[in-house]
Amino acid sequence: MELLGQNFIGNARSNGSGETFTIASPLDQRPLPGAFHVASKADVDAALRAAHEAFAMFSRTTGEQRATLLERIADEILALGDALLERAHLETSLPLPRLTGERARTTNQLKLFASLVREGSWVDARIDPAQPDRQPLPRVDLRRMLVPLGPVAVFGASNFPFAFSVAGGDTASALATGNPVVVKAHERHPGTSELVAGAIQRAIAGAGLPPGIFSMVHGRAETGLEIVKHPLTRAVGFTGSRTAGRALFDAAAARPTPIPVFAEMSSLNPIFLLPGALRERGAAIAEGLKNSVTNGAGQFCTKPGLVFAVEGPELTAFLETFSKLFSAVQPISMLHQGICATYQRGLDALAKRTDLQPLARSAGTADPARSEGLPVAYRIDAKRFLADPHLQEELFGPFTLFIVAESTDDLVELAGNLEGQLTASVHGTPAELSIAGPLVARMQALAGRLIVNGFPTGVEVGHAMNHGGPYPATTDVRFTSVGTASLQRFVRPVCYQDFPAELLPDALRNENALGIWRLIDGQLTRDPVKA
Amino acid sequence: MELLGQNFIGNARSNGSGETFTIASPLDQRPLPGAFHVASKADVDAALRAAHEAFAMFSRTTGEQRATLLERIADEILALGDALLERAHLETSLPLPRLTGERARTTNQLKLFASLVREGSWVDARIDPAQPDRQPLPRVDLRRMLVPLGPVAVFGASNFPFAFSVAGGDTASALATGNPVVVKAHERHPGTSELVAGAIQRAIAGAGLPPGIFSMVHGRAETGLEIVKHPLTRAVGFTGSRTAGRALFDAAAARPTPIPVFAEMSSLNPIFLLPGALRERGAAIAEGLKNSVTNGAGQFCTKPGLVFAVEGPELTAFLETFSKLFSAVQPISMLHQGICATYQRGLDALAKRTDLQPLARSAGTADPARSEGLPVAYRIDAKRFLADPHLQEELFGPFTLFIVAESTDDLVELAGNLEGQLTASVHGTPAELSIAGPLVARMQALAGRLIVNGFPTGVEVGHAMNHGGPYPATTDVRFTSVGTASLQRFVRPVCYQDFPAELLPDALRNENALGIWRLIDGQLTRDPVKA
Repeated sequence: MELLGQNFIGNARSNGSGETFTIASPLDQRPLPGAFHVASKADVDAALRAAHEAFAMFSRTTGEQRATLLERIADEILALGDALLERAHLETSLPLPRLTGERARTTNQLKLFASLVREGSWVDARIDPAQPDRQPLPRVDLRRMLVPLGPVAVFGASNFPFAFSVAGGDTASALATGNPVVVKAHERHPGTSELVAGAIQRAIAGAGLPPGIFSMVHGRAETGLEIVKHPLTRAVGFTGSRTAGRALFDAAAARPTPIPVFAEMSSLNPIFLLPGALRERGAAIAEGLKNSVTNGAGQFCTKPGLVFAVEGPELTAFLETFSKLFSAVQPISMLHQGICATYQRGLDALAKRTDLQPLARSAGTADPARSEGLPVAYRIDAKRFLADPHLQEELFGPFTLFIVAESTDDLVELAGNLEGQLTASVHGTPAELSIAGPLVARMQALAGRLIVNGFPTGVEVGHAMNHGGPYPATTDVRFTSVGTASLQRFVRPVCYQDFPAELLPDALRNENALGIWRLIDGQLTRDPVKA
Repeated sequence: MELLGQNFIGNARSNGSGETFTIASPLDQRPLPGAFHVASKADVDAALRAAHEAFAMFSRTTGEQRATLLERIADEILALGDALLERAHLETSLPLPRLTGERARTTNQLKLFASLVREGSWVDARIDPAQPDRQPLPRVDLRRMLVPLGPVAVFGASNFPFAFSVAGGDTASALATGNPVVVKAHERHPGTSELVAGAIQRAIAGAGLPPGIFSMVHGRAETGLEIVKHPLTRAVGFTGSRTAGRALFDAAAARPTPIPVFAEMSSLNPIFLLPGALRERGAAIAEGLKNSVTNGAGQFCTKPGLVFAVEGPELTAFLETFSKLFSAVQPISMLHQGICATYQRGLDALAKRTDLQPLARSAGTADPARSEGLPVAYRIDAKRFLADPHLQEELFGPFTLFIVAESTDDLVELAGNLEGQLTASVHGTPAELSIAGPLVARMQALAGRLIVNGFPTGVEVGHAMNHGGPYPATTDVRFTSVGTASLQRFVRPVCYQDFPAELLPDALRNENALGIWRLIDGQLTRDPVKA
């Protein structure tokens, strides 16, 4: 499949500013085929104008139409076959089995969202029928539902070239709810992005929808800021670094007309290990923790970067087991040379600290020519940890830090001194957990997902998932970026007062032809409104 | 009832910075009893610390406990009797019947929210039970619900001394969902605020809840900014001017840890009059419009400040009727001398413009000693209106501007050139409405509530209400500040993974002892989870 490297402005293609970039494979630093055109300001403007124009029609599509679109996107992605997986492998170094699994997650997510919008109850329809005889004043007829916001800017993430990129969760939830999307492709997997963008475009054409509902541009950080600042952009979905996420948030907040930003940015996913659990199943916990820290070279939003435990013989034995398992993990290639270099700089800085003690490291050797990251773990005393907030900065890669406290009570205090997180986990025996209320309360204040006797990596795409948390985990703790509730990010309520039936959306008409759940006078029902 | 003028820091009282202020009644400019202490930085800090500490307990209260609290607050407000109404009348000039009605709205709102949290389904519980046999990987047990954010800063509004102030919608929705509240009292009705704060405090004591869940401080704009910038503040609810709301939004966004702000700020509530409607029921529309513009001296968020119509004989006749009705409206006192002076400055500026034509004005005389505002209406051609964005700035008071277009199609274009609004209304005959799709689509892009053949003033507190809209109507178009959905502003989802039953909140346990609606594997049900 030849890559043209152009920007997708609806159905049009643009060579943009004239500036191009190429990328090297993290596997061997050799240049990959394709030269990618950095979008011009005019491209960004054209993409947003096309999105705005298409929104008028797209916002009025039925759930069935949008469900069909999402399913067609899934089909078109699968139709790309091995060429997509192979390009993604060369661009990201991720192994083919992992990429195959991530592709399935991505297409299943599209299908799950399709089923949700086909069913239709997600619009949260509410009807308070007129009460003409109410005293002292009659009540008007009020009907409310959720409608799309308008063009959504989506930023591809480096660590999930499918599931959090061009056709990932942000795009799927925006399109599902009737919002056009303008994607800023991640500059480290532009070829993968181009292939997926083509798939989306074919799906749109096949579904007979306006091409303006999807555009994708290549570019740098400034290109992303141009999209966020464009007056026609209505919301932003982002997964990436704290620095980049905050820059987008700040730009959105400083607009003459501020717009909502959901940026998922930074999390250390603390794990609290209670002594009894280490005593009873230390080996299993060590194995699980080692995997959670090192799988995928630790390049997950939910990788545990902080492990809290209590000094004692259980911990000594546990750390011995953990170190043995950990040292056997071989370094693997990271997503790109930049992440690898940043990780290495982080390790170098930690190595110079006198308050950290080396705990474990891979017995292998990291080959920089293959962008490999060495699995490393340190330990530190709780008091010293509390003294330096820099130790709460995310180090993206196969690294974790053990913080050793004097007592279980100290763990509660430590939990109260952490920044916001996506997840927090605790391992304990039933007896320990039965008295862990104070620790769990602190974990709840801290994080968006709480885990008992498990590990945070592996994020289910379902109805009950929450992938979000207090800042800096995300910029808006009220929403999730994974699961069906992620659709709530890009919609707003509209109330229709005293509307004639023919002007009302189907979801709000008396007869409930869609058969959806609605709140009528405060009662959930699928019944029609009694006329 | 003696007013002490102190700041309420939980159960404690503070004279704050030592600086005090007094207020004059807008009715006669005479000073009212009571000297009010401007809160010090230490007061603000103490209030937030008390709120933070009380949150640990308050966030774990049952819906029944919080429902009882809200009902007790309603009872304590009623128990203040006429003293509350009389003080509010002297502070705001609002007539006693209006204040009596607003008090009922406020207490009914508290009771409605009480019934909602007592029933319990608002937590949006979602359960995806474990699937240990799922291939290729088992599924963990995931259970999600909404939990409170933490201390919420609430700003009293001048125009609703009860319903949008100390015990208004923001406080009610924050407390209902388990969030402590720190109120910045509006500086124009501090005595009313003190009385209501005392009522809330007695209700908290009676309900046996921690006093730290409610504080109220007096002060200026800087005091409000101190509250918003305090690291323990978790969200902000505000109703007021665009300038003040944007300042709070900017301060919240610039925090090291940004927090959500729901600011309801500015709206001109455009009304589109189609010719047939004017022909068929021009007199009724003129009467309704006159009332909507001038009732309460036009001091409503939803007062129509822009009226769009089409040149023609229907309009000429309508404007004649409207002018006659309008000229008979007597000036009444405004909320305070400051609003009155701002209104007068606005009128003076408009009077100097050559592009506006005087259309109607009250035949009375506005007495500045009584803070009266003169009802005034102008007209302008559509083209001239479009040329000056300043005409889209809200003028708070009994003023409206007619924009006269050449055709109904022009109305659609005009609707596409307005800033965000709380409401947009259209008056038309059935035949006109049946072809008004393009206009309604523009209205939907513009506003949070759309009204057919009615007027925007009079906001129902129910399940289907939406009081919010695109910026500058509010800072977050995804939420409403009126109605039961307003509770969604101050909560966040938390997901519990593989939790033992005894650590789960009642709402998420298998048995569903609360009997609430839950989404189990994507299906809404009140059934227990099958074990």
